[in-house]
Amino acid sequence: MSYNSLQRSAENVDVTIYECEVQLKFRLIEERGVLTNREQVLEMLLDALTCGPDEYLEYQHTEVNVRELDETAAAPAMRRQLIRLRNSPELH
Amino acid sequence: MSYNSLQRSAENVDVTIYECEVQLKFRLIEERGVLTNREQVLEMLLDALTCGPDEYLEYQHTEVNVRELDETAAAPAMRRQLIRLRNSPELH
Repeated sequence: MSYNSLQRSAENVDVTIYECEVQLKFRLIEERGVLTNREQVLEMLLDALTCGPDEYLEYQHTEVNVRELDETAAAPAMRRQLIRLRNSPELH
Repeated sequence: MSYNSLQRSAENVDVTIYECEVQLKFRLIEERGVLTNREQVLEMLLDALTCGPDEYLEYQHTEVNVRELDETAAAPAMRRQLIRLRNSPELH
């Protein structure tokens, strides 16, 4: 394996852990009594994000923050997954 | 049209405006440089909500608040849509 291909492999598996915060505020026309729990709101939100805003949905506020996380702060399962990915360039 | 069917129609179009706030905090394994803008994070989040958490995604915090909005506080387009829905029971 040449130096170049080694370098390319290393580039291919340049994975990291992101910490993301999303705040969404929106107004939604819906039948009364439909939105009674968290799962239903998240499902509605999923539909809304898929279809985009329309006359039934109006975004009020969207805030998204992303930062790279120091991986020593991540949970063991996530760190193991990261190591697996780095050691398996063929997955990319 | 009998009184009962009128009443049923009225029940069918019992729509309202909800104001929803969603706060999500999550960690995500991703290739470095992929999450550079808001749209990409929202797209990732959409995938994540569709597939559910796995070894690439870990929820840290989820908060969902929903309340019915006084419709006089809504934007004109949304109020018009609400009136249209109330006057069109066949849509339901």
